[in-house]
Amino acid sequence: MELLLSVSKDRPGTLSAQIQRRIRDAVRDGSLRAGSPVPSTRDLAGQLGVSRKVVVDAYAQLAAEGYLVTRQGAQPRIAAGPFPDAVATPPAVAVAPGRFDFRPARPDVSSFPRAAWARCLRDAIGEINIDDLGYGDAFGVDTMRDGLADHLGRARGVVADRDRIVVTNGYLHGLGLLCRTLAARGARRIACEDPGGTDEARIVTRSGLAAVRVPIDDLGLRVDLLAAAKADAVILTPAHQHPTGVVLAPERRTALIALLRATGMFAIEDDYDAEYRYDRPAVGALQGLDPAHVVYAGTVSKVLAPALRLGWMVLPPSLVEPVRSDHDHGGARIEQLAFAHFLRRGELDRHLRRMRIRYRRRRDAMIAALAESLPSGRVCGIAAGLHVTVELPADVDEAAVAAAARARGIALATMGDYAPGGGRPPTLILGYSQMSESRLRAGVRELAAIIRVTAGGNAA
Amino acid sequence: MELLLSVSKDRPGTLSAQIQRRIRDAVRDGSLRAGSPVPSTRDLAGQLGVSRKVVVDAYAQLAAEGYLVTRQGAQPRIAAGPFPDAVATPPAVAVAPGRFDFRPARPDVSSFPRAAWARCLRDAIGEINIDDLGYGDAFGVDTMRDGLADHLGRARGVVADRDRIVVTNGYLHGLGLLCRTLAARGARRIACEDPGGTDEARIVTRSGLAAVRVPIDDLGLRVDLLAAAKADAVILTPAHQHPTGVVLAPERRTALIALLRATGMFAIEDDYDAEYRYDRPAVGALQGLDPAHVVYAGTVSKVLAPALRLGWMVLPPSLVEPVRSDHDHGGARIEQLAFAHFLRRGELDRHLRRMRIRYRRRRDAMIAALAESLPSGRVCGIAAGLHVTVELPADVDEAAVAAAARARGIALATMGDYAPGGGRPPTLILGYSQMSESRLRAGVRELAAIIRVTAGGNAA
Repeated sequence: MELLLSVSKDRPGTLSAQIQRRIRDAVRDGSLRAGSPVPSTRDLAGQLGVSRKVVVDAYAQLAAEGYLVTRQGAQPRIAAGPFPDAVATPPAVAVAPGRFDFRPARPDVSSFPRAAWARCLRDAIGEINIDDLGYGDAFGVDTMRDGLADHLGRARGVVADRDRIVVTNGYLHGLGLLCRTLAARGARRIACEDPGGTDEARIVTRSGLAAVRVPIDDLGLRVDLLAAAKADAVILTPAHQHPTGVVLAPERRTALIALLRATGMFAIEDDYDAEYRYDRPAVGALQGLDPAHVVYAGTVSKVLAPALRLGWMVLPPSLVEPVRSDHDHGGARIEQLAFAHFLRRGELDRHLRRMRIRYRRRRDAMIAALAESLPSGRVCGIAAGLHVTVELPADVDEAAVAAAARARGIALATMGDYAPGGGRPPTLILGYSQMSESRLRAGVRELAAIIRVTAGGNAA
Repeated sequence: MELLLSVSKDRPGTLSAQIQRRIRDAVRDGSLRAGSPVPSTRDLAGQLGVSRKVVVDAYAQLAAEGYLVTRQGAQPRIAAGPFPDAVATPPAVAVAPGRFDFRPARPDVSSFPRAAWARCLRDAIGEINIDDLGYGDAFGVDTMRDGLADHLGRARGVVADRDRIVVTNGYLHGLGLLCRTLAARGARRIACEDPGGTDEARIVTRSGLAAVRVPIDDLGLRVDLLAAAKADAVILTPAHQHPTGVVLAPERRTALIALLRATGMFAIEDDYDAEYRYDRPAVGALQGLDPAHVVYAGTVSKVLAPALRLGWMVLPPSLVEPVRSDHDHGGARIEQLAFAHFLRRGELDRHLRRMRIRYRRRRDAMIAALAESLPSGRVCGIAAGLHVTVELPADVDEAAVAAAARARGIALATMGDYAPGGGRPPTLILGYSQMSESRLRAGVRELAAIIRVTAGGNAA
């Protein structure tokens, strides 16, 4: 343990007084915080090249003044304070915990396979080679990218090989990287789905590009309107539109691919939760239809845990070097190697099988509870994913319901969160992945009561 | 294990022929790669809802055609190929291994404390709470930021608390985040040290800002010239200028702080290797002098391993919310918790003590070898860090020496890599952290021979 201070016989004051003054100042300006350990008298004396008695005296004085807590045999520490803060800091935005958590697009992280992941990490640390421990390839550890190429080809019909997979901190991180690359190549406008996530538009705008919203309907993105939007790229969720749950219809896929080829536009396919499907056949990735024009983006955030901050993009060959030239050194590499083990050992498939059964049960409980408690709601998007949409009668005020629910500790999303422009029927977006069946039933009952009260208030 | 394909009695061909065609197509277009495992016949039959015989027949045909390798009791796999590639991919840029690695600013990752890190990771996985396993705070796990605030206050005199520490993937990742935030607030120009790293200018430019170079001299950054540069922020390495090794002189520190206060300019302090000092007292962080105008940036890349991709910035209070609004969900969180353990248990201090002794020995060997083999070189920057600079006689062609050295498998940097504008005496930048004393001596001997030949060629 080291403490950054220096003393000198050439400076004013005794050596002991100099030490006292330095520590006092450091406590006052906040650089030594309440409870922080400081070196033992022996250690500090050694570091400063002074006799131990000098430090013992200084510490005794500081302890007497209430700056330091010293106890025989224990590490000396800065006292609990209070000490004045050098600079006031605005508090971080607090997230209310919520009694019922209906937030969509989040996995049940309480089921995170800690033991299996710990084994993979342990093996990764033991094996990681010197190159990968250094800066290595900014696109990610080779073995992870090889394993991912196999996995994505097999499970999602993605055409990939190691050299055009870039490992990211997750979808939004990758999107930022891509937007900056496109901007540097002269792109101006990026189309997003309406309704759709709002984070995308934020990232697009921060990259110096304009975000253009293109509506979706029951067949998915309105490709005819996209053609008129004069966008350089389009961000979409073809397998399971977020948040409506619509699947991009085969004729729209064909039209989109034709448009990409005719115009050179790129599509950015956000394949965020394709792993969860219950009553319908799997829909292959759009990327498989045209790997030269589609960027495929995936993440472990919905299948394992957001905490891993592990995602990927499969790039068209023409974007590989441009993205590389914009890249920093990438994300945590031991985790990447661990994920390669996790894939190779079949742990991901095993975890998904287990979770699909669990989520399907929760979805069924959710649908049954909605049918019972809220028969006036029209439930959609039930075939896949981790949430349903519930369209409410036209006279219900969606924002008022959401506000009343949040006030009662019920966390949820509404269509308004995804379509700031409005014009959509009042709709709740309800995730069912994070609560047990009985909690889901209780939450839906309470939510239905709030909606009845709010709707009654409107009618009055 | 799942394979994404579907078959139907309504489609042309037998079910077995449909399976064959799908797999054949997937192999041809690269979505199933050579050697990839495919589901067992029993599994695939279950997934597709067909009889096992249908799949057995399809696999037998594919095996006969050379697409599949099936063996009793073993997982069936796609054969070794060759298969045509759907899209050609440009190869990744290869990094030559090099017989002698003198690259600067890299730690000896062969000394990475794997066992201690594995213990910290194991404990982190066991302890991480549900919030942190989810999206949590984008700025990073609380316990890491608390531990870091203590550590930076104690070891570097940094004024920090959790709320204004943002965990990054490393210095360049943080710099990008900061530059985009400054650009969104209207910044136009960022000053960088000359000579200095070239990655900084790339990141600045990609964020839509102009990079302005301000010269350094023997006292560090020319603050008088910075005042004229009309920059919104300045990036500098005050504790140990990269690559010259100069320490920012006290009068320059004072002048810089006065300039920051007078103009509202921000300083971005890259404290990349302050932990390594050998013959001089520690220099406290600039940030401690003015936490409202200095962003402090640090990383574990030089003290542990670049692979962890773990860095941090301590932000002035006025930049906390602006950076937050630009942020994606941050980096790997289990690693952050592991690093908190690593700090708290004193593992970092222990590792640094061990490495300082090792690096000092290597530095001494390097200086001795240079004095013996290359007496005409002027060696500087020896008091700290992981590299020295060697100024060569004025008639030596630095670029020719570097090219000849690289051709012989000697990796190094030159002043030209840091000062593209030229105007500096021919200088080599030689890292000594990655080789044993005997390898260093051998490498310096070989390098000196190359310089003699090149200088002789020039003179001729």
